[in-house]
Formats: sequence, C-alpha cells, structure tokens
Amino acid sequence: MFEDKFSDRTKNIEASEIREVLKVTEKPEVISFAGGLPAPELFPVEEIKIACEAVLTEAGSDALQYSTTEGYTPLREAIAQRLKDIGIETAIDQLLMIGGSQQGLDLTGKLLLNDHDTVICESPTYLAAINAFKVYNASFVEVETDEEGMNMEKLEKALQAHPQAKFIYTIPDFQNPTGRTLSLARRKKMVALANQYNILIVEDNPYGAIRFAGEALPPVKHFDTEDRVIYLSTFSKIFSPGLRLGWICANEVFINKFVQLKQAADLHTDSFAQRLTAKYLELFDLDAHIEKIKAVYRMRRQTMIQCIERFFPMQVQHSSPEGGLFIWVELPESVDARAVFDICIQNNVAFVPGEAFFPNQGKRNTLRLNYSNMSEEKITEGMRRLGTVLTSILGDNVANF
Amino acid sequence: MFEDKFSDRTKNIEASEIREVLKVTEKPEVISFAGGLPAPELFPVEEIKIACEAVLTEAGSDALQYSTTEGYTPLREAIAQRLKDIGIETAIDQLLMIGGSQQGLDLTGKLLLNDHDTVICESPTYLAAINAFKVYNASFVEVETDEEGMNMEKLEKALQAHPQAKFIYTIPDFQNPTGRTLSLARRKKMVALANQYNILIVEDNPYGAIRFAGEALPPVKHFDTEDRVIYLSTFSKIFSPGLRLGWICANEVFINKFVQLKQAADLHTDSFAQRLTAKYLELFDLDAHIEKIKAVYRMRRQTMIQCIERFFPMQVQHSSPEGGLFIWVELPESVDARAVFDICIQNNVAFVPGEAFFPNQGKRNTLRLNYSNMSEEKITEGMRRLGTVLTSILGDNVANF
Repeated sequence: MFEDKFSDRTKNIEASEIREVLKVTEKPEVISFAGGLPAPELFPVEEIKIACEAVLTEAGSDALQYSTTEGYTPLREAIAQRLKDIGIETAIDQLLMIGGSQQGLDLTGKLLLNDHDTVICESPTYLAAINAFKVYNASFVEVETDEEGMNMEKLEKALQAHPQAKFIYTIPDFQNPTGRTLSLARRKKMVALANQYNILIVEDNPYGAIRFAGEALPPVKHFDTEDRVIYLSTFSKIFSPGLRLGWICANEVFINKFVQLKQAADLHTDSFAQRLTAKYLELFDLDAHIEKIKAVYRMRRQTMIQCIERFFPMQVQHSSPEGGLFIWVELPESVDARAVFDICIQNNVAFVPGEAFFPNQGKRNTLRLNYSNMSEEKITEGMRRLGTVLTSILGDNVANF
Repeated sequence: MFEDKFSDRTKNIEASEIREVLKVTEKPEVISFAGGLPAPELFPVEEIKIACEAVLTEAGSDALQYSTTEGYTPLREAIAQRLKDIGIETAIDQLLMIGGSQQGLDLTGKLLLNDHDTVICESPTYLAAINAFKVYNASFVEVETDEEGMNMEKLEKALQAHPQAKFIYTIPDFQNPTGRTLSLARRKKMVALANQYNILIVEDNPYGAIRFAGEALPPVKHFDTEDRVIYLSTFSKIFSPGLRLGWICANEVFINKFVQLKQAADLHTDSFAQRLTAKYLELFDLDAHIEKIKAVYRMRRQTMIQCIERFFPMQVQHSSPEGGLFIWVELPESVDARAVFDICIQNNVAFVPGEAFFPNQGKRNTLRLNYSNMSEEKITEGMRRLGTVLTSILGDNVANF
C-alpha cells in the first residue's frame, strides 16, 4: 500500500535486521552487551535540575522561543574553548549546533553525496553512519583496520582506485564497533593523503573524551592544514544523550551550507537543551564529571577483559580499547556469530553480531560487546554465560584454526 | 573552495535572499511584522519549571538517556487523545515524535521525493516547506488560492496535468503566509480528488488550535478514507517552539518508514523535552493555556485589521484570518513589495515581501504581516508607519488599478 509512492532512496533502506534481532535482548532475564548506552547512574541529574531552574529563572521565555539555526552563542563559545583544549583552533563561526552527532552524519550525507558517490570508511564501521549515508545512496569502500586503526597503505590504494570518492569517514578514537584508536602517525598520514588526493575527511568523535588509559592523541582535525576535515562531536557520552546535542566544526564554507540544510531540516536544535547545557558548563565542572565516567568505565572495561581471558576459549581474539564503550571480538573464521547469538539468547546473554558493521560484506565471525551500561557483577555473570556458550561451540577443538 | 565536492541538491539551495533581507529588520528601532514568532510573554515558564523539576525527580536519569525513535509513549498517548478531540481517530502506532513539524517536511521529502518529482501546493505557500522539498530537487505546481483556500477546480486540472505528482502539500488552517482557511466543502473535495487521482496529501497543521473566530473545521485527515493523508503538527504555536517538538500522524506503512529515516537522521527527538511536555500536559491544562493565547492574538489581529482600514490606501487588499499568526496583503499589481520594503526600512517598519512564498514565479505585489509577536500599541505604530509609506507610493492615484 502506497509503497509505489516511496522514493528510490527509501526503497534502499531495509528494515534493519539487527534491530529485529536486538528486540529479543530486551527481556529482563537477558544480560545484554548489545546496546551502546552510557551509564545512566552517572548522569548529573541534580545538577541538571539546578541548571533548568537557573535557565528558566534567568532567561525565562527566551529559553523557550525559536532561536538561530547556528545555535546558542555561549554554548558554542564554551565548545570552541573545549576544542582548543584538545588541539582544534576554532571560532564560533565554524561551529553549528545539531541534534546529536548523528544529525551531523545526515547533514554531511546531504551536503556531499550524490547518488552512488563513494564513501571510504573503516572496516568495520559505525552502523548508523552506514544507514545515514545509505539514505543518500552512497557506495562504500571499506579499508582494513588493525589495532592502530585504518591501514594507511590500504587507504592510499583505495584513494587511487576511487579518485572521485567524496570523503573518508573515520572514528579515530575508541571506534564503534572495535574500540580501536588511530595511531598518531596514521592521523598525520591520513591528512597528508587527503591533501594529496584532494578528498575530504569526516571525523566522528563521540568517544574521544572518555580515555581511561594511554596517552591522549590530538584529533585528526588538529593536523588539518587545508580545512578538509569536517569534525563531529556530541555531549551524548559525556553529559546526556537524551538531550540530543552535538556539533559540527568545519570551515565556514561548509558551515554556511550546513546551516541552510539544517534550517530546512528542523529550523534549529532545541533552545532549552542548549541553554541548560551552557548553564551546566557555567555552574559545574564537566571535566570533573568526565573523570567520574572514566573511572567507572575503566573498571568495567577491565572486568570485561579479565572475563574474556578467564572464560573465553583461547582462540578468540579481542581488541583492547583505551577508552570508549566497546570491545570487538573475533571468533575463529569458521564460526558464525549470528548462530552464536541465537544460542546465547537461549542462555540469556546478548551482543551485536559483527556483520552489520560492514557496509559491503560482513565478517560473520565477529561481534561487539558494550561494557559501559552495567555493573561489574553483571558483566562478570554475562561474560561467564557467553564464555560457556563459546566453549561449548569451540571446545578444545583448535584444529580448524 | 570545496564547492566542487557539494552534492547537486546542495547547489540547488541558494542562500535565501529573504534571510539576508530580513537581517535589516533586527535593528531595535525597526517595528518588524516580518517574523513568525509566537508571543513569548505567554510561554508557561513557571509551569515548565515545575514540569522540569517533576520529571527529573520522578524519572531521573531515564529522562536523560537515549530513548526510542518513535517517541515517549505517554506523550504520544496524550497527542492521540488531542487528535481524537479534533476528529482524527488514531493510535500511538500511527504517531512519530519529531523535532518540530519542520522535520516532518524534511522526512516527507526524504520518504517520497525522487529528483524532479512534483509537489502540488497552494500558491503562495510556506517558505520553509519550499526549501525542505527543494533539498530533494522537487518541482512545484502551484494551485491558486482564494479566501476559501486552494481552488478545487484548479487542483483537479493540476492533477490531470501531472498524474505522477507525489503529493498535495496543504496548510488548511490559517495558512502561512495568507492566513486563509480551506473551507469544509473543499476539504471533502480535496480528499475525494486525492482518492480519484491516487495521490497523497501532506497536511501541515501548526496553527489549527489557534482559532479565535468562526467555527472550527475538522482537519483534512478527518475525511481521509484511504489513509492517504500524512498529518503534521507541533507544540510550537501552543506551548513552546524552542523545544522543537512536533509529530507525524499517518498510516503505519508510512510511520514505519519514517521511523527508519528519523533513526538515520538523528536517532530520536530530545527525551527530556518530550517528558517535560508530557508532564506539563499531566499537571496543567493546555487548553486553558491555548485560550489565553487566542484571546491575545484575537486582539492583535483585530488591531492590525483596524489599522489596515484606517491607515492603508483603499486599493490595498488583505486577508481576514480567523486564527493563526498572519495577514496577507495584496498591493495593486504594478507595485513591487520589495521596493516598498526598502522604503519601509528607511521608515523603521518591516514585513516579508510576498514573492518568496511562491516557489515558481512570485506575485511581487504581495506581502505578509505577522501580528502575534508584539503589543497592540506597537502594532498600531508600525501600521501607521507602513500606511504612510503605502499612501506616499499609491497616493490617490487609483487610475492604474
């Protein structure tokens, strides 16, 4: 009924199989490592209450009225300062407030992608970025990743093979789904290659502030000598995801067009959410709050890694993230994680089968685990269940691998 | 710089001339009828303060976490009840919460429009709808309107001439920019024509609740026998526009696809804004609040009409809205409202020249006036200035008209 009226782009978008799969993880008896939610018990509820009260008392109706598409100036000023602190020199004219960094992906697709344009991305990459770009009928060229992120030799080959590719999409810090971080040398190399091959970079950085081990690396945009990097970030992982507040930082040429597209898309981002976040930043110490998040996630990540070592068969590989929310697991090549998932659900434990994170052809022996959203006790119990399933499948039979 | 990387759709979107024009209206000495803002002094600031406090106390971190794309269930239930009250029988599965009804226009374009698909619309029509659909490279067929809204004979001719047109876009109640309302007979006829010619209808109803004269008419969707109407509405004009809260009401076939597109666009609408609005609806009486808005707008509209009769030359025509925020003015055909605007700015009064509201070829002798956003005193003074300018241009010289 009416499907014949749908646009071609809509027909490209299938109901996400993964979404259906994950519905079974919502049963209360299931310990689910499938989500990607921040720990809600860390949300600064009381501080936000104070910020709401202060905004409505001080700004009154201004906080509830239509506002500019660009975003609330004091908030953009605070973000510009925070970006400066991590090595991005910017000004508020280069910042646009958006409805979470997901909207940055949609607007980037809108701004840059014609039908069948090529996006070069990490393999695997963020599922909802794949979906955002698919809306604009993108083609994907996947570049292999290892523990240091995207392989630069492979990237150069991809650039040579696809000279018309529109942009490189990268999540350099604690990538979703792998948890891996692009090394310093590769960050510099990525920018050099972008300059050489005249391609843009879309740097998606939702997790960068959540580093609990190792040394912080400057964003790719820090090395951007030709304003080729469109940088996306968000308050979702460090403050509150429900408020849907993110930003785009890019050269004014991009921002001016983004503003036009944002205006046509939804006029502007929630004024009240912007003001209460600015007020929170004024009254409280976000960095101290982030330290609390990091301390908790550090322990949860450590617990999960310890459980892998303790409960999983030896032939299972895993990433060792220094921050963020996720660990990536590779099973022996002959094992289908989707089949493992079905057995796990019988045993009340869940994860995301990795296949969905590959835009072209998935590695079916992979899976993603989230550790940010539950207690260490629950992590240990869930991992014990998962380990039992994996051991029952893999046994001591390492001959195949 | 990098413009060669932009998508074709982006190249279609010019920097809005009107936006540049309106920048001069922001000077404090200018009395501007150019905006479209609700009266901020009527926003229920204290009630919203109480709702925020209650939500954060009762729901705590749940109000700040990621939530479902479809939207907060108690809010959708309350909206379903409100829709029932105006003649739309619906259920929450037919409702999607969005970031203001503007996002509904963007998602509708995304869902339905291939390049060069035709949208049939009122002439003139809402500027930001034109922009939203232009992003998807729409073509527009304008149908003449009169005091009863879109002309149905002309609509039928348009449907015959454009059998592949994707949808009819209509703002039946107190249209932006004309303030006109589609008559009851024409509402029925529009649905009958849509059925006959197998076309969809996008009904945009941001102003319907703000009726301060005449009798309320059921929405076009009330007469929708074949689920062809995609209905958009919002809390912007009756509660707070800054919160960016609107909804789509449509058959599940549409909603399911809208959910996928919304998820790719920005995951979901601000959870906190949804919850505080639901809490407001629970604790307070929105309809009583709307009565206050109506009482104020009724007086402002009356003042503006009286000023037209008192200060404007006789040959100037105007609409007589029974609700909403706008009055439409037609000058004699030889007069260019853009030139009038320039003189008005010298005299510290402003409006929107009407040309921008015509997607194809504008009637340059038209203009839009907003009365919702200022006191009666200010309206009177601004209209006096505007009348002086118009009299100086038109004088007693009616010979041309």
